[in-house]
Amino acid sequence: MTDPLRDLRDELRAFAAARDWDQFHSPRNLATALAVEAAELLEPFQWLTEEQSRSLPPETRAAVEEELADVLLYLVRLADQLDVDLAAAARAKIVRNGEKYPVDKSRGSSRKYDAL
Amino acid sequence: MTDPLRDLRDELRAFAAARDWDQFHSPRNLATALAVEAAELLEPFQWLTEEQSRSLPPETRAAVEEELADVLLYLVRLADQLDVDLAAAARAKIVRNGEKYPVDKSRGSSRKYDAL
Amino acid sequence: MTDPLRDLRDELRAFAAARDWDQFHSPRNLATALAVEAAELLEPFQWLTEEQSRSLPPETRAAVEEELADVLLYLVRLADQLDVDLAAAARAKIVRNGEKYPVDKSRGSSRKYDAL
Amino acid sequence: MTDPLRDLRDELRAFAAARDWDQFHSPRNLATALAVEAAELLEPFQWLTEEQSRSLPPETRAAVEEELADVLLYLVRLADQLDVDLAAAARAKIVRNGEKYPVDKSRGSSRKYDAL
Repeated sequence: MTDPLRDLRDELRAFAAARDWDQFHSPRNLATALAVEAAELLEPFQWLTEEQSRSLPPETRAAVEEELADVLLYLVRLADQLDVDLAAAARAKIVRNGEKYPVDKSRGSSRKYDAL
Repeated sequence: MTDPLRDLRDELRAFAAARDWDQFHSPRNLATALAVEAAELLEPFQWLTEEQSRSLPPETRAAVEEELADVLLYLVRLADQLDVDLAAAARAKIVRNGEKYPVDKSRGSSRKYDAL
Repeated sequence: MTDPLRDLRDELRAFAAARDWDQFHSPRNLATALAVEAAELLEPFQWLTEEQSRSLPPETRAAVEEELADVLLYLVRLADQLDVDLAAAARAKIVRNGEKYPVDKSRGSSRKYDAL
Repeated sequence: MTDPLRDLRDELRAFAAARDWDQFHSPRNLATALAVEAAELLEPFQWLTEEQSRSLPPETRAAVEEELADVLLYLVRLADQLDVDLAAAARAKIVRNGEKYPVDKSRGSSRKYDAL
């Protein structure tokens, strides 16, 4: 049993080292690439209804799966360059979200925490 | 030893279930929220040089860490709604990237694979 | 009667010159700022249905109006730094779109031109 | 002498009407399409230095010009659907920016107004 976030981090380090790409992988460049990939992930959804987005045709789903992967790869690489423990940061954020969105106030509502 | 991606997936499922949020968590909505968070992650870098982005002041780094977490949370949740295995998709993408960017052709170059 | 795109371009030139901001206004930085603003414009829509988005509450509408302005300002400034005539480029694009989306094939369809 | 923003607005209205596309042009959908186009505009800059971004190769510049046009078209269309006067909103924003960034405090600095 292994930790996929650590494994991906290590593989991406080796991938970049073999290609001498650390020079391009500044946090700024990686954050830019991540935002571009996130928009590519959004692209196939732009004219779909929410309902349609719940049952994608097979080719769209395959394309979306690849974009999800791209986002994760840049995210892992960016976190590594900033020396951030992604899993720990995400766990801490869930705790904070639990405080910002108490069950009784946020149940069935999509309002932002400052409008609850 | 646990798998953080699976743990986060399960925690987010419980978080949404407790708040009756599945109705809002369509793939389209989640892909939109993910793109918005990716841009918030990019925001602190927009006027920085690459060099500056490699050594962020502490408050900026803390804010960036929180945005990294937000991106991961929406990514995990979106993949879950689409029934995609994120770690497997990312591993498959690294293999494809290795084919698109052979070491000898891409070494030291930031060119796109179709321009190598 | 004046051309608002030209007027805005001239005002933004003077604004930047007075603050010695040309050094920060590289096309890359401006394209980044534009993408960040476009995501801020998207943010208030992320949990709304399409129907809800057609009748925004007054405060949301005011916030959206300001984000629309931000996008236009960065767009005009970026086009100026690249020496692009925005209005001419947009007119040319409408012509191309008319060719990609012939009325008889695209009527009532949200499909992309390569899937018509 | 004509106002290009008004002309584009009118042409896009006719374009959508001829194709029965108003049904797809909800503010939410248009804001999504705008964010996607803004990221496509950012894409060619992601691995460039600021210096490189100031002198793009001809094909890149042509692609960027087309993306600038796409952003403007969605921006004009979205403003129209929300009944916002884009030029007036932009002029008002320049005034507000002048107040947030007084010349003496912001000269030569890329800091955000709340950090001046």
